[in-house]
Amino acid sequence: MFEKEYDVIVVGGGHAGAEATAAAANMGSKTLLVTMNLQTIGQMSCNPAMGGIAKGQIVREIDALGGYSGIITDKSAIQFKMLNKSKGPAMWSPRAQNDRMRFAEEWRLALENTPNADFYQEMVSGLLVEGDKVVGVRTSLGIEIKAKAVVLTNGTFLNGLIHIGEKQFGGGRAGEKAATGITEQLVDFGFDSGRMKTGTPPRVDGRSLDYSVMIPQPGDDKPEKFSYLDTPVLTTQRDCHMTHTSALVHDLLREGFDRSPMFNGRIQSIGPRYCPSIEDKINRFADKDSHQIFVEPEGWHTVEVYVNGFSTSLPEDVQYKALKSVKGFEHVKFFRPGYAIEYDYFPPTQLKHTLETKLVNNLYFAGQINGTTGYEEAASQGLMAGINAHLKINEQEPFVLRRDEAYIGVLIDDLITKGTEEPYRMFTSRAEYRTLLRQDNADFRLTPKGYAIGLAKEERMRRMERKQEKAESFISFFRKTSFDPDEINPILESLDSATVRQSDKLFKVFSRPKVTMDHMLQLNSVSEFVSENELNSEVMEQAEIEVKYSGYIEKEKNNADKLQRLEGVRIPDNFDYSKLKSLSYEAREKLESIRPVTISQASRISGVSPADISVLLVYLGR
Amino acid sequence: MFEKEYDVIVVGGGHAGAEATAAAANMGSKTLLVTMNLQTIGQMSCNPAMGGIAKGQIVREIDALGGYSGIITDKSAIQFKMLNKSKGPAMWSPRAQNDRMRFAEEWRLALENTPNADFYQEMVSGLLVEGDKVVGVRTSLGIEIKAKAVVLTNGTFLNGLIHIGEKQFGGGRAGEKAATGITEQLVDFGFDSGRMKTGTPPRVDGRSLDYSVMIPQPGDDKPEKFSYLDTPVLTTQRDCHMTHTSALVHDLLREGFDRSPMFNGRIQSIGPRYCPSIEDKINRFADKDSHQIFVEPEGWHTVEVYVNGFSTSLPEDVQYKALKSVKGFEHVKFFRPGYAIEYDYFPPTQLKHTLETKLVNNLYFAGQINGTTGYEEAASQGLMAGINAHLKINEQEPFVLRRDEAYIGVLIDDLITKGTEEPYRMFTSRAEYRTLLRQDNADFRLTPKGYAIGLAKEERMRRMERKQEKAESFISFFRKTSFDPDEINPILESLDSATVRQSDKLFKVFSRPKVTMDHMLQLNSVSEFVSENELNSEVMEQAEIEVKYSGYIEKEKNNADKLQRLEGVRIPDNFDYSKLKSLSYEAREKLESIRPVTISQASRISGVSPADISVLLVYLGR
Repeated sequence: MFEKEYDVIVVGGGHAGAEATAAAANMGSKTLLVTMNLQTIGQMSCNPAMGGIAKGQIVREIDALGGYSGIITDKSAIQFKMLNKSKGPAMWSPRAQNDRMRFAEEWRLALENTPNADFYQEMVSGLLVEGDKVVGVRTSLGIEIKAKAVVLTNGTFLNGLIHIGEKQFGGGRAGEKAATGITEQLVDFGFDSGRMKTGTPPRVDGRSLDYSVMIPQPGDDKPEKFSYLDTPVLTTQRDCHMTHTSALVHDLLREGFDRSPMFNGRIQSIGPRYCPSIEDKINRFADKDSHQIFVEPEGWHTVEVYVNGFSTSLPEDVQYKALKSVKGFEHVKFFRPGYAIEYDYFPPTQLKHTLETKLVNNLYFAGQINGTTGYEEAASQGLMAGINAHLKINEQEPFVLRRDEAYIGVLIDDLITKGTEEPYRMFTSRAEYRTLLRQDNADFRLTPKGYAIGLAKEERMRRMERKQEKAESFISFFRKTSFDPDEINPILESLDSATVRQSDKLFKVFSRPKVTMDHMLQLNSVSEFVSENELNSEVMEQAEIEVKYSGYIEKEKNNADKLQRLEGVRIPDNFDYSKLKSLSYEAREKLESIRPVTISQASRISGVSPADISVLLVYLGR
Repeated sequence: MFEKEYDVIVVGGGHAGAEATAAAANMGSKTLLVTMNLQTIGQMSCNPAMGGIAKGQIVREIDALGGYSGIITDKSAIQFKMLNKSKGPAMWSPRAQNDRMRFAEEWRLALENTPNADFYQEMVSGLLVEGDKVVGVRTSLGIEIKAKAVVLTNGTFLNGLIHIGEKQFGGGRAGEKAATGITEQLVDFGFDSGRMKTGTPPRVDGRSLDYSVMIPQPGDDKPEKFSYLDTPVLTTQRDCHMTHTSALVHDLLREGFDRSPMFNGRIQSIGPRYCPSIEDKINRFADKDSHQIFVEPEGWHTVEVYVNGFSTSLPEDVQYKALKSVKGFEHVKFFRPGYAIEYDYFPPTQLKHTLETKLVNNLYFAGQINGTTGYEEAASQGLMAGINAHLKINEQEPFVLRRDEAYIGVLIDDLITKGTEEPYRMFTSRAEYRTLLRQDNADFRLTPKGYAIGLAKEERMRRMERKQEKAESFISFFRKTSFDPDEINPILESLDSATVRQSDKLFKVFSRPKVTMDHMLQLNSVSEFVSENELNSEVMEQAEIEVKYSGYIEKEKNNADKLQRLEGVRIPDNFDYSKLKSLSYEAREKLESIRPVTISQASRISGVSPADISVLLVYLGR
């Protein structure tokens, strides 16, 4: 049935698989997406939302490089919020609620409209491997499909096992079959595999809730969006609502603990620490007698509601009894209970920075198979795997983002350098250079790179350049133009900021903490410049951040440059660590297992001390 | 989790389950729809189309009664055709192509917007029965949900087994799990069960087809619609395309016959005769070296295409090789292969006219579980089961449609009286009174009945009445108004129809075969009446049919009335046929097993002769 060899086969159609398919196909690879069900491409398996703290930055980065997640999110959003707006711009994080059905349909249509992307519905049950190289996949019908590279994005489907109370049954998601065969084969090839666990809350009927006793959580007054392209901005939005658990709710949940697979030992695998089940929260924070519950609509029109904060694998009768005691949920009707799911993953230290496996050439892993959690983490890995699969088979340089270039760089470097013992989620605190890695400048950071490798299209590049030119000219206007003390002092007085005696550059007063762009715009020279140059809010925001945080930004750039020099010190591929007797035993063991590519990467491995790094530097001639 | 007893539980969310839920809920029953996957409510499992010959009439009947199928079809249609327009109006049959995703989403949203309808996602694995009465269901998690009545609409899911060539695997549809437990329990209760088989063709990538060598099949220039309510009319449409198989294609398919589960004995169950697989067609019509293939788009935007006429369970490589040789399919890319599926059904002679089972009270069956095939057949049974479940638990008279009242009446009477050895599909030839059972007058026939039982809403009833009044006044205008020979003769001459010498009623010339409403409208008196009374095309069509076919209609009405007298002769519930020694042995056996309610029903049982009917009539005092 498949006569020709594909360039790239992507297994799985979730966030990772969809981005991998789009990236490889858009770069020119003949790409085949194989999934167990073509109707579930782009499914949001858990909550109907994209973005959030650090995650929103990742979606902006995916978009800047030429991925689809931002566009799909904008097209299917029902609410938008810029989180952390009260903090510095490094912390601003976009987040959207989405219409679940729209999101999946937009993904499917976007992929269908991508030249070079083909589709096939069946379970992949094994890989075709020749020597140390993958050459295709085998399906459950026994069909062999050849390809130069394969990207695995199996999500929670590999030997997926669903738990609700004392019941367990095989499945990749509620109502869907598990996938078998791949893990067993990879273990035969010598891969380490492990089990992880995640969970999802009940879905309920919104008509059965009393919203009048909950706290509305509306979207932003002026909603922004994810994509740097010309996607729609929301004009109406749907509210979420907040309510709380109580001591009574916790007591009711505790009554089921002896029947919980989390506590009676039936689930051994580790779940996402920062997305814990409600029973976990009660257990770990025994002194708290209330937790927040966010009631999220599943779409524009559906009455289905996602009960964020109430993920659980307790028996369904316990789930029901407890949820009914939550304020506003007194008459709740369940659409389906929450559940936990265990699935296979492969410790990501078995990967290169390109997400290619070390053991099997041209085989790439992305998403939960690497031990991560989250749509955004999965999507970004899919994108990078798709890009690198294409580059590799075309004998081009690999595409790797540094830790000072993108959250995506931090994510992948963390995974392959440190591995992960529990589902890995991105946080701003994981990034050393978060003042550089902002959501507002992902296009400046990454669009030129995406364009250079042939992923970001001409239009995207031109938009970025226009924005950059305008922002730079505005910043240089602030650097060159002087203010008139008589004009500025009333503004400074109104802000309780010291007045000035003589004229100076605008940049100087604008750098003061209390002075914002709105104040600057009260000056004739500034407002004239803005209207003459037709500067939009995006450009003004950009200029404001660059001016006001220029000190921090410079400092981080210097630090990054310093480290970059270490990054330049490459460790030869087959470096023999056993020669270096002065390395600590632990360092030698870790270095031999992880085989860092640079001194900088070596320095981030836990157990490798600065002393060990010195030994390496001396040996490598520095 | 389910504290309160429901009035009605519907198991399954396909066409039958969705209509059953809507009907019971709209009549006021607290109704719970339980399905294995809430995301697949209203799925079109096979082709993306509704209606067609006799089936289109059924959809119009469902709509006239107050069901949803017509509304959903109109909202999601991408093409509309009135089939058989060149034949008499009894044969006119509406058919729509649909956007598969829209259709399912519209169903889901329509049900969500139905008060009294609740939803729960899980597999039902058994029934709760007390004595000879069903009192609820049990789910796979062991949850017991109580109800006064249960409607089973399991489609192809009961012990579903999918075949592709020599491979077979459990499943209810491609990529979905089978359902277990219910058949086994019903057999324990004494039900007869059997296996049936159906199949579906490959889905392919429309981008890989060459439409330029196929024959476009556009929709009607003036598309009509299904619902009598104010649903949207299509303003743009998508084309289908026609192509053909060839001797070469047939040869290629024959090469796989030894690996076909249809021919090597692996599939024993009987499939739908009038929707055969391509291998069946080749086998049965060995002299034909070409069959039609209709290429149907799956939606407005998707590239997925349904290959109507190429249903098959041959090995996937044979499917591919053969389809590639079909004109326009030279470069075809498969989204998924065709397959056959075997599933459990229960011979429908075990049902009453209400679709309630004879063995277990308050238990109703609808759809493929009764041995039928087709979305429309399933939907209409669901509607009738939902209605009757509601009426029964409210101790109201059952709602049964006669054979001269509706195709739905023909369908159900056929099923329960004759049973079916193969998947039952509706045809116009199954109806004795098809001049009465037209698509244009389903509202006149059924809306008053739907309104009387509280299903059809006020607005629907008023619309029907307005249409009826206007049509009747227009018909009586034709009966009363005379024409002027000088005005009509030029028209008659142009039609090669005999001219008239003296004035007569309009009705008389209008009755002539060649004279249509368009000709009538050339007369001043007619066009003035139309504009004065603001008659729309629906009313004019109605009047035209009633005038032109008045002879046939009268005759069928008389025949129906005669038979109706037999229908009036009821056979007592526990009638002892063994007393009637003069009945033939076969007749006695069949009568004892089927237990007809009336003499008329008895007369339709195969093996019951007119002589047997005379015996019964004599005994019953007629």
